[in-house]
Amino acid sequence: MAKRLNIGMIGYGFMGRAHSNGYCQAPHFFPSEYRPVLKAVAARDAEKAKAFASTWGYESIETDWRKLVARPDIDAVDICTPNNLHCEIAIEAARNGKMILCEKPLAMNAEEGERMCAAVEKAGVPNIVWYNYRRVPAVSLAKQLIDEGRLGRIFHYRAVFLQDWTISSDLPQGGAALWRLDAAAAGSGVTGDLLAHCIDTAIWLNGPVDGVTAMTETFVKERMHNLTGRVEKVGIDDACAFLARFSNGSLAVFESTRYARGHKALYTFEINGEHASIAWDLHDLHRLSYFDHRDASRTRGWRSVHVTDGDMPYMKNWWVPGLQIGYEQSFVHQVADFLDSLSTGTPAGPTFRDALETQRVCDAVLASARTGAWTRVGA
Amino acid sequence: MAKRLNIGMIGYGFMGRAHSNGYCQAPHFFPSEYRPVLKAVAARDAEKAKAFASTWGYESIETDWRKLVARPDIDAVDICTPNNLHCEIAIEAARNGKMILCEKPLAMNAEEGERMCAAVEKAGVPNIVWYNYRRVPAVSLAKQLIDEGRLGRIFHYRAVFLQDWTISSDLPQGGAALWRLDAAAAGSGVTGDLLAHCIDTAIWLNGPVDGVTAMTETFVKERMHNLTGRVEKVGIDDACAFLARFSNGSLAVFESTRYARGHKALYTFEINGEHASIAWDLHDLHRLSYFDHRDASRTRGWRSVHVTDGDMPYMKNWWVPGLQIGYEQSFVHQVADFLDSLSTGTPAGPTFRDALETQRVCDAVLASARTGAWTRVGA
Amino acid sequence: MAKRLNIGMIGYGFMGRAHSNGYCQAPHFFPSEYRPVLKAVAARDAEKAKAFASTWGYESIETDWRKLVARPDIDAVDICTPNNLHCEIAIEAARNGKMILCEKPLAMNAEEGERMCAAVEKAGVPNIVWYNYRRVPAVSLAKQLIDEGRLGRIFHYRAVFLQDWTISSDLPQGGAALWRLDAAAAGSGVTGDLLAHCIDTAIWLNGPVDGVTAMTETFVKERMHNLTGRVEKVGIDDACAFLARFSNGSLAVFESTRYARGHKALYTFEINGEHASIAWDLHDLHRLSYFDHRDASRTRGWRSVHVTDGDMPYMKNWWVPGLQIGYEQSFVHQVADFLDSLSTGTPAGPTFRDALETQRVCDAVLASARTGAWTRVGA
Amino acid sequence: MAKRLNIGMIGYGFMGRAHSNGYCQAPHFFPSEYRPVLKAVAARDAEKAKAFASTWGYESIETDWRKLVARPDIDAVDICTPNNLHCEIAIEAARNGKMILCEKPLAMNAEEGERMCAAVEKAGVPNIVWYNYRRVPAVSLAKQLIDEGRLGRIFHYRAVFLQDWTISSDLPQGGAALWRLDAAAAGSGVTGDLLAHCIDTAIWLNGPVDGVTAMTETFVKERMHNLTGRVEKVGIDDACAFLARFSNGSLAVFESTRYARGHKALYTFEINGEHASIAWDLHDLHRLSYFDHRDASRTRGWRSVHVTDGDMPYMKNWWVPGLQIGYEQSFVHQVADFLDSLSTGTPAGPTFRDALETQRVCDAVLASARTGAWTRVGA
Repeated sequence: MAKRLNIGMIGYGFMGRAHSNGYCQAPHFFPSEYRPVLKAVAARDAEKAKAFASTWGYESIETDWRKLVARPDIDAVDICTPNNLHCEIAIEAARNGKMILCEKPLAMNAEEGERMCAAVEKAGVPNIVWYNYRRVPAVSLAKQLIDEGRLGRIFHYRAVFLQDWTISSDLPQGGAALWRLDAAAAGSGVTGDLLAHCIDTAIWLNGPVDGVTAMTETFVKERMHNLTGRVEKVGIDDACAFLARFSNGSLAVFESTRYARGHKALYTFEINGEHASIAWDLHDLHRLSYFDHRDASRTRGWRSVHVTDGDMPYMKNWWVPGLQIGYEQSFVHQVADFLDSLSTGTPAGPTFRDALETQRVCDAVLASARTGAWTRVGA
Repeated sequence: MAKRLNIGMIGYGFMGRAHSNGYCQAPHFFPSEYRPVLKAVAARDAEKAKAFASTWGYESIETDWRKLVARPDIDAVDICTPNNLHCEIAIEAARNGKMILCEKPLAMNAEEGERMCAAVEKAGVPNIVWYNYRRVPAVSLAKQLIDEGRLGRIFHYRAVFLQDWTISSDLPQGGAALWRLDAAAAGSGVTGDLLAHCIDTAIWLNGPVDGVTAMTETFVKERMHNLTGRVEKVGIDDACAFLARFSNGSLAVFESTRYARGHKALYTFEINGEHASIAWDLHDLHRLSYFDHRDASRTRGWRSVHVTDGDMPYMKNWWVPGLQIGYEQSFVHQVADFLDSLSTGTPAGPTFRDALETQRVCDAVLASARTGAWTRVGA
Repeated sequence: MAKRLNIGMIGYGFMGRAHSNGYCQAPHFFPSEYRPVLKAVAARDAEKAKAFASTWGYESIETDWRKLVARPDIDAVDICTPNNLHCEIAIEAARNGKMILCEKPLAMNAEEGERMCAAVEKAGVPNIVWYNYRRVPAVSLAKQLIDEGRLGRIFHYRAVFLQDWTISSDLPQGGAALWRLDAAAAGSGVTGDLLAHCIDTAIWLNGPVDGVTAMTETFVKERMHNLTGRVEKVGIDDACAFLARFSNGSLAVFESTRYARGHKALYTFEINGEHASIAWDLHDLHRLSYFDHRDASRTRGWRSVHVTDGDMPYMKNWWVPGLQIGYEQSFVHQVADFLDSLSTGTPAGPTFRDALETQRVCDAVLASARTGAWTRVGA
Repeated sequence: MAKRLNIGMIGYGFMGRAHSNGYCQAPHFFPSEYRPVLKAVAARDAEKAKAFASTWGYESIETDWRKLVARPDIDAVDICTPNNLHCEIAIEAARNGKMILCEKPLAMNAEEGERMCAAVEKAGVPNIVWYNYRRVPAVSLAKQLIDEGRLGRIFHYRAVFLQDWTISSDLPQGGAALWRLDAAAAGSGVTGDLLAHCIDTAIWLNGPVDGVTAMTETFVKERMHNLTGRVEKVGIDDACAFLARFSNGSLAVFESTRYARGHKALYTFEINGEHASIAWDLHDLHRLSYFDHRDASRTRGWRSVHVTDGDMPYMKNWWVPGLQIGYEQSFVHQVADFLDSLSTGTPAGPTFRDALETQRVCDAVLASARTGAWTRVGA
């Protein structure tokens, strides 16, 4: 008989759905000692909370997150709010002894992140951040190949995260689905929203970043603000690019924008090693490109690996070779790994502390963009 | 409050899982008047049935499908057995007034299919066959574009379904997951297993097939039989190719094999019309290739449409543009459409009668492969 | 000092240019004992012949091909006329002891081809047919890999040659660049023009074809004829598809059409073997796709080989790795190989006799399309 | 009767061949008032000069470039030497009133470039630099589309030029084909060799660059020097990446390396505009990727344009739609355009002055890499 893990969800937007689906689906595909139970969802709007609870099967609702994190029948709190609430909620949840699953980025900045780490570590509660792309099977496979030394010495890393949904200057900022354009709620623009994903993957695959030089731009300077009803200055970065040096001596180029016409959510990375190279992109997330220079010359070329076989990460639990899974399964995998970590006692990353390192790189990037100078990643 | 639709599942293999997932997921993404309830699963092996029921949440088990189809608390019977049981179960389920969702191919041959159609039509029960690829969003989009007349007069249709999993002669036939290699259980090899999918899509997109000429081959002539423990003659077709003429005057080439090294489940089709062409493949099922000759010449080219936007079939119910879904969602869509059809009273295809047409083409193909002659598709 | 090989060219169209370019370029890239000299070009229209001679550096012109083939200062005759003249010219050239380089297809039918073979073999003159695709480096590489046994037992061969330039019913037939639509000049439509290429490659790579079953279609039944000024019945096949069995036991599907919207000249082939598979297409002719099942599973995938390295066929004579060559170089390679064959005494294929085999398959295909029956390839 | 343009070539390496091929081929495909005559080639090694002259048909040789540039029978001097000789030769050739076609990069630095510009402008001689990628038809097509305003306001430009041929530390530097690794001969590494191409295209397509911030790296610090026979410090940059801002407000990221395993000569660029985006890569140079947001949503996607039709730049002079040309044709086009410019009197770019702008960006990049600071492109 599975142990119940009672989930308290805060938020009901895009990520609230993605996480809820993870909790529902994990038991169907990944056997575990624990079974998530959707105990409660918190949202200020009771009607919306009820509708969400009905769709996903949450047993109850709260309209105040403070009540939810204090409920004794909640084992784990899932934070799906805008970024500006992560810190306060996480600290309060930790104070209540709850496990925490926090949406990325960890915090508005590294200072907040430090306090969050201190809180969960003091409380001794399992904690994880939803950098879900680590658990796309092709990305997990890349990690395996790198850790096995297949690439040899690493020379280059490059990543982009390109979108095009904010090009129109008629798009307002703030509120509901548009809080990502509101600096007060989001902290930053593409840096925290998109580059944070790129940085998390990069640190995971290629180790720490030493220093960066960056530029940012806000192409549309003013937008109507949904909360104030006034045209206001846009405080977020619409685009950000930076050069970086990793501790292992490799060079990197990162870029993100919401003004790359033709790309909806094109997260790509490529890593070039002495012997082999790897590339991946989110628009075809079930494939991994692999080039091995040790192949015989006449048949050497980039291999397009269709990551659907049973010996590839997570895939033996799904269907049969050739049948692809999609975006949402990365969250299912994260739930499965989190449940496993409860059984084994070995934390499933990225923990709050892992995610703090990404936050520090983001902070250095934004600082460099302001000063124009190379900036070391803070200790 | 949703109306309950009590499902009785027969079988617990690959398709049993895929269908069960469809029933679980449909309510999370597609609002409906009806909510499927996993009432019972039937399998001869009680332990396996229990394990399956536990994973998917079936409320009860049966070890005799006859009991399941007779239970008054079952509204709809889902047939996921090997092909040789479809006919008997379906007729019995119809006799009991159950709705039927039958795995493809409909039957062992058109004669069985005729009897099944007669049974469900006499009983007046909703019926549908799991030709799930119709409901991959990119394929549904192809159907829309064709029905809107975008392609103009159709000249050519071509489809392949290529696999490579039976190349080793050490692979046995029969029993459990290998019933597809056993003629007694499967009826035919790639013709019924794979080409049936291609034919269903083709008829749906391009109308009826008039005649065919075909060849089949069994590359490995004998295999150990799991049920008898003896090396026995292989009765199925390992590969099948056929030429066809459609009623609309277009020409077609179809091919399927389990001996195409490098292809795990590569179902592809292409359709060439006077003004535009469309192509799709299952290994990147979230994309549709579209060529429109009416584009200005200097920028004319095949367009790779990433089928993830909200105005594309089924996609507004999933995530956001750029984030792909996978194989399993085609079954979720079929459940959603079936539930809708109960509300509207308009059957969701393919019905048994639709699937009978595919069966007739399969029969003509196998007949032609035996005689070497062009064969008309039977009335 | 290079030996001079005096070329007499008959025709000045698309192929006249392609071959002339081959003669001009071969000495720049492929050292040889022989150097082609553009001695004379023959065409009925003196002005056009002069213009062509001026562009390409032909030293003289003739307006009667009979004069050209009789000239003592001509060593080799290159036949670039419409198909219906190949036979007569070749036999006359052979009678005059000339080497012959004949554009494909060899003849209007196998009977003509037989007589041409007899003529060149009786005369003992070097002879070759311009099935140029054999000498696209990626195709030559495919030949090497197959001959080295990399693929193991072959199960499947498939090829298409798709174009879309005759869809408009306003396009006339006959005369000048449109002789390919005129049955009297071309013999057949896509079968001799396009499938002949596919068949030549297939026999070269996979051995003899035993039998075929085919269908053809003429979508536009009547077209204005440029030579008569009248609307006339179209005698050629607009599209042709056939199934085939090779002597080695493999199955094949071939298709060609000029009604495949979106494909200008898409010749593709794929060959599936026990251990490995190969695929190629003319729209990206500098790449070869290669899949090797012996690769370790987690990094197994189709490799896209950029055929530009020095150890790949013909490529050490061109530029540096990564820099692609194009269509025209296949003719340069054929000239280079033909010159080499004069030095070594080993014929460079395809000889007339090699090309006769392709002609026989074409004849069988056209016969099967008429009768609807499987047809053995004539001895 | 064509006017003769007598060419004097200095150098006989990779570029000597590429340019010579351009002179030979231009008259075969591009009618012109002028016909290039290969009058003389200069090289210090007489044997090598003779061999080169014999292959390409140069009428004479010189072993001292000073003699060649002084010869009265030379109309135009083509400079194909290592970079450190460009300046001296160009100034001397201009003093002798010769037209000059100079291999890229223009010079070792902007100071040299300034003197070269002054020399040709004072002499009033036609001058051009071999940034050949402008004349790849797909790149020329990109230029047309941008100039027609198809993209609207430009937000982003990104380009990489990736190679992998110097990863082995056993590779020596200096002399013959390896002068590109020798700072004394090359000036810089990938910046002048590869990024110069990217910058030339970028300025041509997107206008002037205002400022940059850059990093460079030399992964292999010491290499055997072929000229001295000693292991010596490597003075060139193995890799270089920089961020840039264009005058039109767009942001850019550029990167080049010879340590990107798997990429032989992968020059790619992408440009994102308000309405449309364009992408191109050198490994498939005959294709242009084009995305137009104005397409109807359900069929909107990246279009892969096969740049082989007659209405695309340069292509009406080659073969037929669907048949690709390759790398070398970009030089043929440059010769053709240069010849045209002599007839029309309108210079064909990039002139020395155009190329000086690229040199200034390179200088700023190298300066920024040394200082770590954003650097304005010098006036």
